[in-house]
Amino acid sequence: MQTAPDHHLHLLARGQPRRPAALSQLNRVVTLGGGHGMGRVLSALSFLGSRLSGIVTTTDNGGSTGRLRQSQSCIAWGDLRNCLNQLVTEPSTGSRLFEYRFSGPGELTGHNLGNLMLLALDQLSVRPLDAIGLIRDMLHIEPQLLPMSEYPTDLCARTPCGNHIIGELSVDQLDTPPTNLFLHPPVPAIAEAIDALQQADLILLGPGSFFTSVLPPLLLPELCDAIGRSHAPLVFIANLVPEPGPAGQLDLAEQCRWLEAQLGKGRVDAVLAPSAASDAKVPCRLINCELGEPTLPHRHDRERLCLVLEQLLLELQGSLPQVG
Amino acid sequence: MQTAPDHHLHLLARGQPRRPAALSQLNRVVTLGGGHGMGRVLSALSFLGSRLSGIVTTTDNGGSTGRLRQSQSCIAWGDLRNCLNQLVTEPSTGSRLFEYRFSGPGELTGHNLGNLMLLALDQLSVRPLDAIGLIRDMLHIEPQLLPMSEYPTDLCARTPCGNHIIGELSVDQLDTPPTNLFLHPPVPAIAEAIDALQQADLILLGPGSFFTSVLPPLLLPELCDAIGRSHAPLVFIANLVPEPGPAGQLDLAEQCRWLEAQLGKGRVDAVLAPSAASDAKVPCRLINCELGEPTLPHRHDRERLCLVLEQLLLELQGSLPQVG
Repeated sequence: MQTAPDHHLHLLARGQPRRPAALSQLNRVVTLGGGHGMGRVLSALSFLGSRLSGIVTTTDNGGSTGRLRQSQSCIAWGDLRNCLNQLVTEPSTGSRLFEYRFSGPGELTGHNLGNLMLLALDQLSVRPLDAIGLIRDMLHIEPQLLPMSEYPTDLCARTPCGNHIIGELSVDQLDTPPTNLFLHPPVPAIAEAIDALQQADLILLGPGSFFTSVLPPLLLPELCDAIGRSHAPLVFIANLVPEPGPAGQLDLAEQCRWLEAQLGKGRVDAVLAPSAASDAKVPCRLINCELGEPTLPHRHDRERLCLVLEQLLLELQGSLPQVG
Repeated sequence: MQTAPDHHLHLLARGQPRRPAALSQLNRVVTLGGGHGMGRVLSALSFLGSRLSGIVTTTDNGGSTGRLRQSQSCIAWGDLRNCLNQLVTEPSTGSRLFEYRFSGPGELTGHNLGNLMLLALDQLSVRPLDAIGLIRDMLHIEPQLLPMSEYPTDLCARTPCGNHIIGELSVDQLDTPPTNLFLHPPVPAIAEAIDALQQADLILLGPGSFFTSVLPPLLLPELCDAIGRSHAPLVFIANLVPEPGPAGQLDLAEQCRWLEAQLGKGRVDAVLAPSAASDAKVPCRLINCELGEPTLPHRHDRERLCLVLEQLLLELQGSLPQVG
């Protein structure tokens, strides 16, 4: 594990946590991202209960979510459903119901009941946040899940040739990284996400597909503003294995530049990355450590992740030797 | 309103309620029956919260429930769903979800999401009581709803010619009342219903279809035994308008004889019936009063029903003049 050069430490120490910094004593931890990656982080930190908030990307347009979005005007529920499922710590009647897939002969075959419930809530014009609240109650999930916006929008990109493309699927199919990303139509961030960031003691980004999970929430100016105003340390959790698609061509330093283009120079305080991903040009504290699960090396191990975050927080107080 | 002959009053006074008898101070009120009728009573008494228990008939084999039961071995959810819906006092996200029916083009059209949820719970082999618990949580319903049995069974009848017929639908289609009713296969009552009856301060039967909603729970010997052991007054709430089918041919006295054939002579303490239904041969306290809703005269008005029950209970204590 690489130790931090001194000039990076002051960045990490920008925030005086309101309480002693041990992870379990933080008042509010906020993660941003989507899909399996952030679901894993939320699951690792779920012991924080309602003090944990996940701001979830809602621009997915693949799979059944994509088909649904073609016929209905709704936010993309895929990443939210994924996070909800990963926050189920103990299978309950509610979670078995939510995950149930109809089988056997008949018109319902293959339909997932959780999807049907979310579809019905959409058609009922229930506020997405209220819909999530209902499902959280049913699944006994304490952490808050906030869609980045309650309005439908698509991830768009400008290619190096100057073309505009629309939709996560198109972005993932690019041969080379785009020159920039934006949302169309522009939509407002959900107010509760801005509030959560304003109260944050620790902000985590990722892991996950860089262009289609990690970056979309940062394309909302209000969320970037709230992060900019926050004194909480901001940690980017990089992927454990290179991702396919154009984002796989970015090294850690380039990913940090993308983040800083949205958040401002110096706003990313630390990067957690696997040992193989050392990169001298990363413009902040880089912590290289093995965080993969023993049996699923591309997935973050919950305990290891918590341990590293815990050490990182204690480092801020000087109460333990530096991580590394 | 007919006043009670003296020799009936002692029957009503069999139970010394554990607390002052005003309705809202009872520890446990138990209703038995099914469908719209009992749902209405539960709704009227829902202010009792968790002190109210409904033991619900589960032998319905008509409609979508019936089609479902032909392909799956499950209890009939129709009456339970009806009671759940009627106990929703304020529309919530959960209740709108449970009642949602898919529309528009597509394979889901016409399906009710509540039915799909109950179907999924059945296929997951969730205990019916746990399934009800989940839905009650979602709908913020405090009163307990107990299926009379957690095992599938059918209502059967012997006709005056000595034939046996199976299924509620067949019973409803008889030209003349059957000579007796039974369940096939025999199934055990749910233990929680026996418990509820043992703790009851007041037991209510009906209203509803006499043969197919009111009587089925009384075909379970354990429930009749529990009612027999109870000191709680037992009130039969008759229908406000004659029902179609063979039960419509029974007068109040005959209905009471059917009840007493199951429960034992003298166990029914009082009958609430509309003014038109006076019947001198009713073997217990008969209270004739107008209980219909002003706009829907076949439905019990919640407030009037509560008022009459309240007066009936106070009558037991001699603290108010007799109802009538």
